Formats: sequence, structure tokens, C-alpha cells
Amino acid sequence: MFVAIMGYGVVGSGVASLLKKNHEHIVQKSMQNELELKYILDRRTFPGDPYEQIVISDFSKILEDDEIKIVVETMGGVHPAYEYVLACLKAGKSVVTSNKELVAVKGCELLEVADEHNVNFLFEASVGGGIPIIRPISQCLAANDIDEIAGILNGTTNFILTKMITEGMTFDEALLLAQKNGYAERDPSADVDGFDACRKICILAALCFGKHVYPDSVHTEGIRKIKLSDVEYAHSWGGVIKLIARAKKLEDGRVSVMVSPAFVQNHSQLASVDDVFNAILVRGDAIGDVVFYGRGAGKMPTASAVVADVIDCAKHMERKKFFGWKDSEPGYVADYLENVTSFYIRATTENAASAVASFNSLFGKVELLTRENAPEGEIAFTTEPISEKELSEKLAGLKDAKIESVIRITDY
Amino acid sequence: MFVAIMGYGVVGSGVASLLKKNHEHIVQKSMQNELELKYILDRRTFPGDPYEQIVISDFSKILEDDEIKIVVETMGGVHPAYEYVLACLKAGKSVVTSNKELVAVKGCELLEVADEHNVNFLFEASVGGGIPIIRPISQCLAANDIDEIAGILNGTTNFILTKMITEGMTFDEALLLAQKNGYAERDPSADVDGFDACRKICILAALCFGKHVYPDSVHTEGIRKIKLSDVEYAHSWGGVIKLIARAKKLEDGRVSVMVSPAFVQNHSQLASVDDVFNAILVRGDAIGDVVFYGRGAGKMPTASAVVADVIDCAKHMERKKFFGWKDSEPGYVADYLENVTSFYIRATTENAASAVASFNSLFGKVELLTRENAPEGEIAFTTEPISEKELSEKLAGLKDAKIESVIRITDY
Repeated sequence: MFVAIMGYGVVGSGVASLLKKNHEHIVQKSMQNELELKYILDRRTFPGDPYEQIVISDFSKILEDDEIKIVVETMGGVHPAYEYVLACLKAGKSVVTSNKELVAVKGCELLEVADEHNVNFLFEASVGGGIPIIRPISQCLAANDIDEIAGILNGTTNFILTKMITEGMTFDEALLLAQKNGYAERDPSADVDGFDACRKICILAALCFGKHVYPDSVHTEGIRKIKLSDVEYAHSWGGVIKLIARAKKLEDGRVSVMVSPAFVQNHSQLASVDDVFNAILVRGDAIGDVVFYGRGAGKMPTASAVVADVIDCAKHMERKKFFGWKDSEPGYVADYLENVTSFYIRATTENAASAVASFNSLFGKVELLTRENAPEGEIAFTTEPISEKELSEKLAGLKDAKIESVIRITDY
Repeated sequence: MFVAIMGYGVVGSGVASLLKKNHEHIVQKSMQNELELKYILDRRTFPGDPYEQIVISDFSKILEDDEIKIVVETMGGVHPAYEYVLACLKAGKSVVTSNKELVAVKGCELLEVADEHNVNFLFEASVGGGIPIIRPISQCLAANDIDEIAGILNGTTNFILTKMITEGMTFDEALLLAQKNGYAERDPSADVDGFDACRKICILAALCFGKHVYPDSVHTEGIRKIKLSDVEYAHSWGGVIKLIARAKKLEDGRVSVMVSPAFVQNHSQLASVDDVFNAILVRGDAIGDVVFYGRGAGKMPTASAVVADVIDCAKHMERKKFFGWKDSEPGYVADYLENVTSFYIRATTENAASAVASFNSLFGKVELLTRENAPEGEIAFTTEPISEKELSEKLAGLKDAKIESVIRITDY
């Protein structure tokens, strides 16, 4: 059986090298006589590369070669990945992708086309890098009604937050270090503004709850505004700040989906997820909380997930894996302003006593937090659960303090 | 499609109730028109139970009913579970079991028979309760060469150790509480002496490394000898004591498999696994470390894993899932005395200075540990890596101190 890779970047080259390194083992698991890499599509050339000879720049060679049964898409971005994948599926080729943007934006349609053409469209590597999560949700937890899923889905922001928490770096210092280490791009927006985590939670929400969730329907906040003072208050509260992506089923059939920094209690399994590691918590009716932890990115971990999907495609040539969800519909994703949660709030004021009295009268009793060396006039506290809408209305009317930071508090 | 359950105890009744509770969802996932529970085999009767009418005591009714395609075995123990399962597989019925003892002792043979008769023998629930682990290892991590697997696989001992660590209870007090809470049997031996964890690591080792590992070939130590002083020294070292079951591939093709208490560093994902929770760490060449965390036992979590297997059987009626390993062979499991690891040692002596000098000369430089209120003459330290054999020879020749405790140190 022959395989093609589209996109010979970090992940694509990892897939090629893994197919070679564990070749015998992989062929055996595939239940095939052979599993051979025939083409690598890339606009660039790779002089001296061990696969130099099979690098091609013409997509139609892959599309028109009937021997190619499995196509790996590791190009990234929506275009032309979408057009290529669509064409491959329609030509009866199974496709494996690590491209979260493609799945988050076009997953529903591509799954439908795969279904029509009785081929597979698999994307284990699109969420959580090498961490097994798509298949465990769709298979292992199949007996459960899943109520909620939440995770640390972006390694770059988790690295930055870890440096802020453990080494007292500022956001800017930690971002610079992440860029030096190759964890963050020169334009770090996709990571630090939460868009990457947003795409991943959209995919998980679709898988868990059965309807597509489009990234632009999800309220998304990044970590740029997090200050060391917030980190210190989280510590005194008994937890840490993490960028949490979460999706929850509501009783009326809609879903609540959001990406934002959040307080996580120290004893939570998510609190000890440090550096570039990811973790995903799934809450099912029968199983309770299950957590999957590992490297959420990186060449070989991601390649490992891609190759596992390739093996699965090879094993299921005559028989499709069952997978899919319906398209979204207007109003399916609830307005985030409906969310009810507890909040952490930091404010500055010229009259602390009067401001605390105002907060107490606005929110019922608030729990004041302290930190060492807090400047005069700084107040921080946590509220009882309250809706986002009600919170912002109350804060809008506030006279005697300036709100510096508002962070949600999780119950994971 | 019809299903039978053998053994209407905690897990069996959980399976029945889950099949009812999430019925529509489960049938849909199974890709069948129907998935109906037809018989429950048990020697007892259950007056007033919703399934009272389908409880039978005659196994041959299940065996001879061609409509029964999937049999769930939740009886526990090797006999007669083994004979019943064997007969079902030979009769062309797929079998799902939660019985770790059966799989650890007879797994290889039952998988072979299943293969011969083109049916499935699945056992996700036998390890880690509801935590997805068997399927992720066999599918999601298929592209990896797995080097090592280690876990907290027994909830009862983890509950006891957690109480010792966080509340300063003695082993006996914590065991009593575990019994009161229903986490430990009146005869707690299978849990506290490590046998339950041993069966589970045997199953995981077979799955990861391709050959059966019999429980009686595995060096197994329980937690009865752990004292609060050891817990305190672990704390001052920077970690906690956990009952760790582990299997490692050796370079010569053999495996090292062991169950014993061990020091785990605080920053490890295994360190924060508390109470009755389980966690399993898998170390692969491409993926690095992946950790799976959740409820390792309990009625509904375990039932959830069983039902996921039932769904998988139903989906794979015409096509077997690929699964299996070879039988063991003499010498496949290395003698544990060959293991090389660092150790924690606690000793008492009448002459501390001379004893420390002896330890230093025996082990090279040792790292002394301290704790508050240590009685006079108590010494505790950690060693550099050394083989188990060499360690016990050195300790045997020791004159000026009495060894009270020896605990291995992990690098997870």
C-alpha cells in the first residue's frame, strides 16, 4: 500500500522519518504486506534529504495515482489544504491530517464527503499533538454521555504561564524566551490570543456533542493581559492561572464553548501541567473525570499521532471508521454572557474601605485575597457564581475603583 | 443484536444499568438496529430487580442461544470464568471482560482462540477501570516503540497511601478507613500486597511488548511495611511514596516487570494522583511520556469501559479487532535482582557517625535525609543507582546498623 505526504515541514518530515524508523512494526500493525511512502508534495526542493527523490511539486500526480490509498496532509492552513483534501477524498483516498484549522473550519463537510466516498478522514494529531484523545473520546468513552471537556490545549501559552508562575517572569519576558526556544512564532498571536486553543476546543466539542462548532462563534481571550500580580493572587487563593479551553453541554441542547485564562485549584490534575505539555479533561456521566496528559506539539509526538491514523486507515480499507457530526445551526453555541461562574477581580482605588464596601454590596460577600508587597489601593477578591452579563453590568456601574483584571474560576 | 452478562455483581449490574440509561446513544454508536440484554447469568436470584425476569442460572442457555453474539464476563476469578469464556469464544461469540485475573493468567490463550474463531476478546475494563488504556496503547500509540509503562494501578493502596501522606494516618488506621468506605475487602491482601496491581501490569506488559507475562514471574511487594517515617523522609526528599507497577523493555529483548512501593518526585504527574484514582504513564520513542488518569475502579467507570468494548464488538461483527501477543518463554522476564535503580534506605543504629561512614564506604557517597523529631540513632539516605543484587549483598554484610526500610526511587 502506498502513502503520500503533502507538506514536508516539521510534522511532515517527522511522519516520513517515523514511517522509516519503526517501519517493520508499523507495517505489521497495519495488517498490510507493505506500507510505502511514494510521494512528498512540497513547493520547495530538499537537496541531500533522504527523500529528495520522491519530493514532487505537482499535486495532480498524487491525485491521479490510483496506488496512493492514504494521503497525509501536514501543510497547515485552510487553503489549499482544503481543496487538496477534498479532491483526495472524492478520488477515494483516505486522508489523515494534523491541521487543526482545517478540521475546525471544514471538518463537518470533509467528514461528510469521506462518508459518501467510503473512505476515512482522521485527525488525531489535530488536537493534543501526540496525546491520544480523538479516538478515546469516540471509542473508549462511547458508553458515556459526555457533559464537559476542558483542557490546556496550547503548549506555547502554557510555557509562558509556567515561567510566570515558577520564575516570576513577566509576560513579555516569558514570551521572548518562548520565541528563543522555538515554542512561539515571531507573530505569536495565534497562540497567545487563544486562537489555536479555540480551534482545538471546536474540534473536541464537535466530537463530544455531535454538532460542528465554528471558531468564530467561540468567545476567545488570550493571556496578554495576565500580570504577575494576578499570578500571585492565584497562588494565595490556592491555585494557578492556566489558559483553559472548555465546552459544556447545556440542558436545552445548546453548548457553551469558551477559551480564556482561568484559576485552577492546585490539587487539580490540570494545575500540575507545566511547560509545553497539554492535558485534556473529559467529564462523562459514567466515568467521571478522565485526564489525558502529554506533549501537545512537537515533531515526533505529532508525527506519532499521524502515523497511528495512517495505520488505522490501512487496517480499515474496506471498512470505514465511524466518525462524524452534524453541521452547526444558528444559536447552537450559547452567548458567553449567559455563563455563570465565579470570578477573580483585581482593582485599584483611592479609597479601599469604600471600594470593598461597594464590591460587597454589588456581589454579596466577596472573598478578599492578599499578596506580599501589594501597592496601596490594590484590592483583589473572588465572587460567588454570577452570570457574565450580570457581572459586566455591575462593574459598569462601579464608581470608586478601577477594574484591572477579571479572571474566571474553574471547578476542575 | 443480543447480549448476555455473566455475573450480576457490582460491575455486571453497572453494565446492565448503563446499557439501559444511555441506550439510544449506545445503539447508535454500535451501528446496529438494536442492542438488547437477553440474559444475566448468576447463581443468585434478584427479587424486585428490574432485570429479575432475565436472570438465569444455567450457562448452557447462553452458550446454545445463537442470537447471543456478545457475552460480558463480570464474574471475576479464573474458574469457572475461564471455562465459560472459552466455550463462548469457541461457539463464535465475542467476549468482553473486566476480569484482570482471567486476562493476566489466560489472556494469551483466549486471544488465540478468539482469533481462530474470528471473534473478539476485549478487556479494556481489566486495567485502570474506566480509564481508556488498552485501546490507546494498541491503536493510538501504534506508531511508537514503547520502552516503558508504569502506573498507579490499585485504588485501594493509593487511598491508603494518600491518607498516610496527607493526614498522617498509620497504615493500619488508613486500611481500616478504606475498609469502612468499601474500598478494601475484609481480607485486603489482593490489594495491599500488590497482587491486583501485578495482574494489571502483566496485561499492560503483554500488550506493549508482545509476549505474555505471568503474574507469578513478577517480583511483587505491597505497602504493609511502609511507615509514617518513610512518608516523612519521602517528603523531605521532595516526593511521595506510591505503589508503582512497571514494565520495561530491556535491550536484549527481555522485560523487567515489578510491583513495589517507590519514591516519586513531586513534580511527576504520578505524584498528584490521590485517593482511589489511578494513572498510567506510557513512555514511547516518538511520543515521550503520556499519562492517562481517572477512576481505576468503581461500578460505573468500570461498566463504562465494558460497554465501550461491547459497542466495539458490535461494530466489528464481520471483522475482528487485531489484538494479541505471543506466549511467554523461560527467562523472558528478567530476574528483578538485575534491576539497577537508586534506593532510599532507613536504618537504626547505636552509633550514627560510624554507621554513616559504613554506608558511605558501601555505596560511595550517600545523600542523607532528615525529618522532624527523628529518634536518636535513626539514619535515612538515598543511594546512587545500584543493582538490587549488589544492594542486598552489601546490606547483608552490614554490622553497625539495622535496616528498617528499603524503597526504590523512580525517574518518572
